[in-house]
Amino acid sequence: MRITRLGNSERWSDVVIFNQTARWVEVASNQQAPVKDQICQILQQIDETLDQIGSTRKEILEVTVFLADLTDVPTLNEQWDAWVPPSNAPIRACVQAGLQGNCRIEMIIHAAAASE
Amino acid sequence: MRITRLGNSERWSDVVIFNQTARWVEVASNQQAPVKDQICQILQQIDETLDQIGSTRKEILEVTVFLADLTDVPTLNEQWDAWVPPSNAPIRACVQAGLQGNCRIEMIIHAAAASE
Amino acid sequence: MRITRLGNSERWSDVVIFNQTARWVEVASNQQAPVKDQICQILQQIDETLDQIGSTRKEILEVTVFLADLTDVPTLNEQWDAWVPPSNAPIRACVQAGLQGNCRIEMIIHAAAASE
Repeated sequence: MRITRLGNSERWSDVVIFNQTARWVEVASNQQAPVKDQICQILQQIDETLDQIGSTRKEILEVTVFLADLTDVPTLNEQWDAWVPPSNAPIRACVQAGLQGNCRIEMIIHAAAASE
Repeated sequence: MRITRLGNSERWSDVVIFNQTARWVEVASNQQAPVKDQICQILQQIDETLDQIGSTRKEILEVTVFLADLTDVPTLNEQWDAWVPPSNAPIRACVQAGLQGNCRIEMIIHAAAASE
Repeated sequence: MRITRLGNSERWSDVVIFNQTARWVEVASNQQAPVKDQICQILQQIDETLDQIGSTRKEILEVTVFLADLTDVPTLNEQWDAWVPPSNAPIRACVQAGLQGNCRIEMIIHAAAASE
């Protein structure tokens, strides 16, 4: 059972790939930014991770979104709708939860990826 | 890597099937209903989705339950216990989180499903 | 599609193994204990489950942590960092959510496991 781990620190891995599925957690790199920018950052960071693992937005299977404030859902949806590939959207859960520090949005992403 | 997406809108897919596993998010169709009815609806909707993908309750692997109010756990359990197949229950996490609008319960479901 | 279920009660299974992946939910056995002890218990219980399924900490793919209070993150990290295997850490999401009773921490764990 081969497990590929990318960017692993002592606390967590940035990406874990196993059995054709990549998993990772995304928070904005700059969390001093307002929520709109944090969402923009996260979507861009997902693109970068997809590129890194040789996948695309069309391979995303599932996204769990934790928002610090549900009133940010319209802001999320505006950017999300422009970002997600039509006819190839993942499933998406979106709930409000307490996030650390100034983090306004945290996502868990599962995407299809070629195992090594 | 073949990914099957059912009921995909521009924002999300209703169901994503990949590598023998179906994933979907369920909220009650009628969220004006009280929590007891929303739970009843969700369980019925899961049955419908299982039927749609050719699986049964015995193939459910994992359910993550987000409740708007943890005091609804006994109401959930009463219906859940009557619904879940003995000796073939999934794992279940159940936490309180903020849900959108009048939604009282949201679930993420993973079930075994034949890939195409 | 063979699904292995361990410790299944009428409400949920303790562990579900399918397609090379084991999934389970962990809460401390003794929830009257303070959060520091609950974290210690959970990590020990994960070890026991890994042993039961023939896996090790190095096979953990993903951990979703729900804390009742985010101020417990440093306490979590102190024990987590000493517990997680360097260079083989899972991905980890950690958010605050409402937990039942005196439960201070709940985890969803996915680990690679040999299917039967």
